[in-house]
Amino acid sequence: MILYLNMGVSYMAKLKGNLLYGQSGGPTSVINASAYGVIKEAQKQSDFIDEVIIMKHGIQGALNEEFIFIKDQSEEEIELLKHTPGSAFGSVRHKLPDFKEDDTNYLRLLYIFKKYNIRYFLYNGGNDSMDTCAKIADYFNHINYECYIIGVPKTIDNDLPFTDHTPGYGSAAKFIANTIMEISYDMHAYHNGKVTIVEIMGRHAGWLTAASAIASLSGFGPDLIYLPEIPFSIEKFKKEVSEIYQKKRQCLVAVSEGISNEEGIFISSSSGLKDAFGHFQLGGVASKLASTVSADLGIPSRPVEFGSTQRAASHIQSLTDVNEAIEVGRQAVRAAISKKTNLMVVMNRSSKEQYEITYDLRPLNLCANTEKKVSKSMINSKGNGITKEFINYVLPLIQGENLPQYKNGIQQFSKMK
Amino acid sequence: MILYLNMGVSYMAKLKGNLLYGQSGGPTSVINASAYGVIKEAQKQSDFIDEVIIMKHGIQGALNEEFIFIKDQSEEEIELLKHTPGSAFGSVRHKLPDFKEDDTNYLRLLYIFKKYNIRYFLYNGGNDSMDTCAKIADYFNHINYECYIIGVPKTIDNDLPFTDHTPGYGSAAKFIANTIMEISYDMHAYHNGKVTIVEIMGRHAGWLTAASAIASLSGFGPDLIYLPEIPFSIEKFKKEVSEIYQKKRQCLVAVSEGISNEEGIFISSSSGLKDAFGHFQLGGVASKLASTVSADLGIPSRPVEFGSTQRAASHIQSLTDVNEAIEVGRQAVRAAISKKTNLMVVMNRSSKEQYEITYDLRPLNLCANTEKKVSKSMINSKGNGITKEFINYVLPLIQGENLPQYKNGIQQFSKMK
Repeated sequence: MILYLNMGVSYMAKLKGNLLYGQSGGPTSVINASAYGVIKEAQKQSDFIDEVIIMKHGIQGALNEEFIFIKDQSEEEIELLKHTPGSAFGSVRHKLPDFKEDDTNYLRLLYIFKKYNIRYFLYNGGNDSMDTCAKIADYFNHINYECYIIGVPKTIDNDLPFTDHTPGYGSAAKFIANTIMEISYDMHAYHNGKVTIVEIMGRHAGWLTAASAIASLSGFGPDLIYLPEIPFSIEKFKKEVSEIYQKKRQCLVAVSEGISNEEGIFISSSSGLKDAFGHFQLGGVASKLASTVSADLGIPSRPVEFGSTQRAASHIQSLTDVNEAIEVGRQAVRAAISKKTNLMVVMNRSSKEQYEITYDLRPLNLCANTEKKVSKSMINSKGNGITKEFINYVLPLIQGENLPQYKNGIQQFSKMK
Repeated sequence: MILYLNMGVSYMAKLKGNLLYGQSGGPTSVINASAYGVIKEAQKQSDFIDEVIIMKHGIQGALNEEFIFIKDQSEEEIELLKHTPGSAFGSVRHKLPDFKEDDTNYLRLLYIFKKYNIRYFLYNGGNDSMDTCAKIADYFNHINYECYIIGVPKTIDNDLPFTDHTPGYGSAAKFIANTIMEISYDMHAYHNGKVTIVEIMGRHAGWLTAASAIASLSGFGPDLIYLPEIPFSIEKFKKEVSEIYQKKRQCLVAVSEGISNEEGIFISSSSGLKDAFGHFQLGGVASKLASTVSADLGIPSRPVEFGSTQRAASHIQSLTDVNEAIEVGRQAVRAAISKKTNLMVVMNRSSKEQYEITYDLRPLNLCANTEKKVSKSMINSKGNGITKEFINYVLPLIQGENLPQYKNGIQQFSKMK
């Protein structure tokens, strides 16, 4: 499959220019590893690519002409990208309008792309970012500006379609599984415990929350798991918590921030704020449910909210995830110089017994704005746990450790000029 | 100093019996490393100690005659104690009455101690546990039952007196420092960020919250740090957050769960529940402050509550902490067989340039029920940050990594029979 992408290169007239890369949407602990893959592959493909330029804060940086030039960076800072969480170059949530309705942004981009001779454009993000990427590709196609545009997937949410999983998910899943184990082991210290409710990210897809179940392999998993895929009933929840607590004198619940009731209304006490894409900012589910348990059941309960830690926990990255994040970056460069465009890199899992990933490409517009949910067969019949099928799916993604570069007991992160 | 303790042994008539060990109070990620130290040293001291018996759920296990016998355990499970968070043998919060008022519990203990020929009793815990330990020592002294009783310190809170620091603190501090860095780096992804408020454990002492400042060494620390040592003013807090947000468009706050106002009233929305020692269960400060920031300042804000993760994060233990936890366990055994009693092991830091710890003993009753707070000279004049003196104090405690034993991407924890 790597062969397939390379094959294309040799047959076509070469286009020489600069490569522009940016990050968008919520960070992951390995998105910078994809940047590393892009940079390293681009440097290798010097027949096609003169220079790697990076937008500060994604597409906003292109509009504002705020760039980071990789040639100005030290090799040490570039290497540290493999251990740096967050968005080393800044991220953004900026929704581009349809260019047929308002082409202001697009004309500005065209000016910038021509000024810097950008012929390859790679955008690293999730669903919304692929929407941005597709719109730019459509516009450049429309006005006939030759630029090859490839989406580089990332999202801890694991909700992009057409790809077995997304870079960023494995590391977040590893953090969640290991932390749930720790919380569970800690809980078991007491005879008379509490109901501990852990809130995990995931607006509409429960992949991250489901990962808490990996902890069960060690005997220290959650008692109940609630995903957004199954309508949530507070009465059913109270009954289930109560039953477990009566038996075990404690109960560990993993709940997705995005659970909603039969009518589709979020259980979380929404802050009422929406982001640029119109999504409600969620949070507070664990807190709300813990209050309900304390007040209605009279059982002591405590919420745990990892917050951004779950997407930023570079100290417990999955090596598999880091390596795949690097590879999607490399693949995107190879696709672009092969004159592929308006596509996103996807990962296919071979059906072989041993875990193996091959890389492919899918149309950006199909990848954008679609959310892949946890399949029904991965959720138990009671809707409060997961099945073996999910464990088999997720386990290979958290394998191996990418040990942090500690100095003075704290990690070292990349600092770009 | 090790010499000093060993010296004592040879001169006295030997007392041969069994050693009883238990864990009490809130777990830490290295309390089981102390159990490991106790077990290994006791096995070495077979001239004095026949068998190591462990109480399930601390003193409750002794009262209920629920024991774990180390001779029944595999070497593998014992070795895993060095990587296992929580209380591997169960913990308890059980306050013993004064034996002069009610000696029921004490008579039961005497019966059990005689039945199992317990001549050495080690109790691993914080302030409250040292209270329990001292009471038992006083009772046995009163009735003239020969049993040597030594307290083994542990608490992530670092609030025990007479000891430079406590085992458990270094690992919790390391987790906090590294996680704060990750949250900070993640926050900086966006131009227009939020006010992120991280709630950190610590009822009356701010040692753990102060550890968030270590992240500043990398350039990714909190903007504001509020400890329980300084009375908290909501108006001052709002002003300080507002000023930073105006300038940076984001603000990272580390706040102790135990902050209270000028009148000493906790800021947290206390659940109203008290534990067996009469302490209020705290929690919800970050949530309360985040709501205040959103409502009163109109700035988006999000709380992060690590919950028990901070005391259970075995995946990022400080090797220094683990080794010291093992050593306090060993020292306690040596002290007991040297016929020392009613004492707690303490750690002294040498005044030398290089970090070095020597071990000593202090009376249990002085250690019990006293809380060591962060000294004023470690807190900045504005009361919203810490000084270099604290960094110099804490940095040696988080050095070195005790890499987890991963299997299938998740940690392995000890499972005792």
